[in-house]
Amino acid sequence: MEKLHVVKIGGKVVDNEGSLESFLKSFVKVKGKKVLIHGGGKIATQVGLKLGVPPRMEKGRRITDRDTLEVVTMVYGGLVNRRIVAMLQGMGESAIGLTGADANLIQAKMRPKHPVDFGYVGDIEKESINVDMVQKILDLDLTLVLPALTHDGMGNLLNTNADTIAATFAIAMAEHFDVSLNFCFEENGVLSDYYKKTVVSKLDRPLYEQYEKDGVVFTGMLPKLQNAFNAKESGVKEVKIGHFQNLEDLMNDNQQGTTII
Amino acid sequence: MEKLHVVKIGGKVVDNEGSLESFLKSFVKVKGKKVLIHGGGKIATQVGLKLGVPPRMEKGRRITDRDTLEVVTMVYGGLVNRRIVAMLQGMGESAIGLTGADANLIQAKMRPKHPVDFGYVGDIEKESINVDMVQKILDLDLTLVLPALTHDGMGNLLNTNADTIAATFAIAMAEHFDVSLNFCFEENGVLSDYYKKTVVSKLDRPLYEQYEKDGVVFTGMLPKLQNAFNAKESGVKEVKIGHFQNLEDLMNDNQQGTTII
Repeated sequence: MEKLHVVKIGGKVVDNEGSLESFLKSFVKVKGKKVLIHGGGKIATQVGLKLGVPPRMEKGRRITDRDTLEVVTMVYGGLVNRRIVAMLQGMGESAIGLTGADANLIQAKMRPKHPVDFGYVGDIEKESINVDMVQKILDLDLTLVLPALTHDGMGNLLNTNADTIAATFAIAMAEHFDVSLNFCFEENGVLSDYYKKTVVSKLDRPLYEQYEKDGVVFTGMLPKLQNAFNAKESGVKEVKIGHFQNLEDLMNDNQQGTTII
Repeated sequence: MEKLHVVKIGGKVVDNEGSLESFLKSFVKVKGKKVLIHGGGKIATQVGLKLGVPPRMEKGRRITDRDTLEVVTMVYGGLVNRRIVAMLQGMGESAIGLTGADANLIQAKMRPKHPVDFGYVGDIEKESINVDMVQKILDLDLTLVLPALTHDGMGNLLNTNADTIAATFAIAMAEHFDVSLNFCFEENGVLSDYYKKTVVSKLDRPLYEQYEKDGVVFTGMLPKLQNAFNAKESGVKEVKIGHFQNLEDLMNDNQQGTTII
């Protein structure tokens, strides 16, 4: 089967223009069909505050009311997504930036309002991905750039976690491609010691569960790892977590980053 | 040749959610291949003011400095474009929202800095349109939704007048399609008397030039009409100007709107 690279970049890569450019330079060197998935990092919070839309959290998760949805649509779907595409074009790579609403690529279900009403938040499963349309767009030799936005098919955009989109997208495409899924962020991989920056080179579920129990793995990392294991256990060929600056090394060198096994 | 409908909507259609929904409902009734072009209306000015980026004008035209470019990227390319696409999906029409950077659809030249430095503003001609890629995307049975954003091919998005994009796009596609170009706004057509709302049903260049000399046609209308005549004189089969609410009538009924002859 043909190879497909699905790469997710973390908020801190997007927040800093220098980091973003450095990441994209390594991203364009990767050959073959590619999909890049991103959120909006702190820019959404900053823009929201200026527009009088402060972040509202409930149990550590963001509530997406109507105003917040407008902010993330502007920042994830506008500023960040459009800028990434223009930068890729400037680096000689033709890209196309699409939300889940575009070409009906990802149709989500609005999360039930009980027990917590998270607002315009969409949940997805692998059937939510329009695999046929994704293939047609990739066949135009375009790199897909997806923000953390889906839609409900009834006229509303929805906010969907970018790690979840990356994992679900990778799983859906795994029937047609040898999918390699890479979560790129500002650390060199999953750390067994955050202060000494000790990278775990191979991580299986028992070790992950041990880390979770012992509090070795931090809160933000938990859903990312859950998504990573889901992907690995659902047919995605390779799942790695590592630094955004050396994507090629992360993909090709088993000494780099954390491989989910 | 196959028919292609190119429809431009004015700022006041975009500003008001009710107007936008009413327009889109009539837009989805139009059969065949379609392209919708829009700006961001007053929303961009409002968002800009809240973000501390007031509009800067020079000789009646907006200066697009770096901060303004970010605002229009968020509003035209994010909020408005993504919302239109989601709304169209909700009405059963599969659409795709692309700037000129996406799939390298429209590559512009940054306007020379003399005599006036307009900043990140792009000028285009018919060769700027990636006709081949446009056809491939339309062949996926997707309606194209384009905001007033192009790119320079060197990593930068550029602000380009939406009327100009509509006319230039229509001209470029006219070699492959019977193109019908419709400028839709809040009036019933070009008015020979603004207060009595008398619509000119047919407008040729001599009459337009007379209107211009006599001050019958208002400032905002002048570039729109210049674009309309350019299109008509460059192979676009039908060019009409009319109200956004009855697009089908405007297209099919010669008594509606202003036809450029």
